[in-house]
Amino acid sequence: MHSQLLTEINAQPQAIAHALTQYAHITAIAHQIQSYQPRFVLIAARGTSDNAARYAQYLFGTMLGWPVALATPAVGTLYNANINLSQALVIGISQSGRSPDICDVVQRAHDQGALTLAITNQATSPLATAAAHHIDIMAGPELSVAATKSYTNQLAIIALLSAALSNDDTLLAALHTVPSAMQQVLDIADTTMSQAATLLASAPAALSVGRGYQYATAFEASLKIKELSGLPVEPYSVADVLHGPVTIVENGFPVLVSGDTGATATDITQLLQRLHSQGATLIVASNHPDHLGYAHVALTTPAGDERLTPLVTIVAWQRLAYATAWARGRNPDAPLGLNKITETR
Amino acid sequence: MHSQLLTEINAQPQAIAHALTQYAHITAIAHQIQSYQPRFVLIAARGTSDNAARYAQYLFGTMLGWPVALATPAVGTLYNANINLSQALVIGISQSGRSPDICDVVQRAHDQGALTLAITNQATSPLATAAAHHIDIMAGPELSVAATKSYTNQLAIIALLSAALSNDDTLLAALHTVPSAMQQVLDIADTTMSQAATLLASAPAALSVGRGYQYATAFEASLKIKELSGLPVEPYSVADVLHGPVTIVENGFPVLVSGDTGATATDITQLLQRLHSQGATLIVASNHPDHLGYAHVALTTPAGDERLTPLVTIVAWQRLAYATAWARGRNPDAPLGLNKITETR
Repeated sequence: MHSQLLTEINAQPQAIAHALTQYAHITAIAHQIQSYQPRFVLIAARGTSDNAARYAQYLFGTMLGWPVALATPAVGTLYNANINLSQALVIGISQSGRSPDICDVVQRAHDQGALTLAITNQATSPLATAAAHHIDIMAGPELSVAATKSYTNQLAIIALLSAALSNDDTLLAALHTVPSAMQQVLDIADTTMSQAATLLASAPAALSVGRGYQYATAFEASLKIKELSGLPVEPYSVADVLHGPVTIVENGFPVLVSGDTGATATDITQLLQRLHSQGATLIVASNHPDHLGYAHVALTTPAGDERLTPLVTIVAWQRLAYATAWARGRNPDAPLGLNKITETR
Repeated sequence: MHSQLLTEINAQPQAIAHALTQYAHITAIAHQIQSYQPRFVLIAARGTSDNAARYAQYLFGTMLGWPVALATPAVGTLYNANINLSQALVIGISQSGRSPDICDVVQRAHDQGALTLAITNQATSPLATAAAHHIDIMAGPELSVAATKSYTNQLAIIALLSAALSNDDTLLAALHTVPSAMQQVLDIADTTMSQAATLLASAPAALSVGRGYQYATAFEASLKIKELSGLPVEPYSVADVLHGPVTIVENGFPVLVSGDTGATATDITQLLQRLHSQGATLIVASNHPDHLGYAHVALTTPAGDERLTPLVTIVAWQRLAYATAWARGRNPDAPLGLNKITETR
């Protein structure tokens, strides 16, 4: 049976290659941003795009030292207050470029004289038009309700922008290895995914945990599994989960853990020890042997630049979301009650 | 049987009265902040205190037009990167003032020359010492693992600071009515709480939804119920829940809704209509008749300044968390596996 969603999940290595062609355009925008010298960054986004914003929060922080605030659109749309965005770089991220609240934040910023940038998959969308600069993520038409290739392409654009702003050729080179790394995750056996999906399908709920760059992965994994399978999965950072939520983990409670060999490795190992001692059922996506050693089901990701692991790790969770949907009797190509474009104010 | 937690929940009207005595001290700090002219605000906090930070994000936004970023401590503690905090006001919020990651953010900011402020319940804590200014929330000793009166006092301090910074006497006057409004919520019949707790106790999971000022309430309700009862409850804004997660709401799925008669009223009503049509079991805390009309269990809150409804509404959810813990066979005075002070890095 043909699945549009699966087609789009499998198209990600190719889609990333398209995103990489945007580097020259991105370099030109980076020059504009550099001469503007932003004091801080505000990012407006919803849903999957908001998880791309979380990735930018860490990448801009570690690579550029920029503080990043995630916008609270209701301050403008409901309370009609204007945030002072003097010297801010304001970025709107949206696949469709059509969510009115995101456009509102960018329009207000532009009217105030702040530098604005839209990152969308639709060059002629209201968001692309409202912003001074626009980067097309080049994911190609995304027809599935659940965003997959538009997410990883958003991450690639954010990484390209960071590389251009910091003249980091290492990151740029590493980006070119992402398509083949993604392919390795696409090649994980379907039976492994089914095993993990079976564990999730019979559970009442689950947690999804990551830290640092993989904080975004924890959120996107959670959102994708919820959207497609209807299973409640709550995302947390390693630190936040210890401030209370860890208490819900009892015997057999599934926890999805996104790890890698980077700076967060020890924290993830310690958390896995604790979750293991509480009897959690652990589904681990990582390229770190210590992490995989705790896994009931191990989703082994390839080695690579830790700053780019989120682009690769999420592919494993997208596949798990797809498998879990079927295991819970839902059709992942038609998530209940959702539309492709959600217009919120 | 004596419950320390219940004692602290019931002490909140009195605790708020103590917080209000800090107004003169807060006014002096507000003058310092005004002459500093912050370009943006960065708030570092974890767990319950992070929900107070969410409240500040909206209140500072609507009342002062200040952009507020929530800190990502891992950027410093794990990746060892320095965020450029030139012209930022950096606030650390922590009941104990002892979480190393929060201290790290404030210390780095202070070393850079940014204006720093600690909001804690411990005047001699490392956080209070690291910051240039300190506001004692005056909640008195909080011995329960789950934070209750320290949360509402943190909100009161944030509201006092906003009132001082914007010379808003209306808000100041309204703050003095909060203790009696809280008392009305404490007077809601135990049987009503038990009814709601019974609905939650038999569910596999739940959602908690709010918007604007009550976004913080949705998060804190979710955290409190998780911590005390072990039930997975995921928090969302009204807009974010429509971008995917709403699909998990099936027949009988419980949703906790925090509403009021303010700017978010229509959005909340529309969401309730939708959730009702999906067969959700609705537990609603609001002072708006339209919202309460959808409720399977209605937790009626008193009328008041919408900017302060979070201080009042959360009391209903704290009581529900307490009741749900017992209904699920947990002792709310001894949450499984949690300590009062969580030291994360």
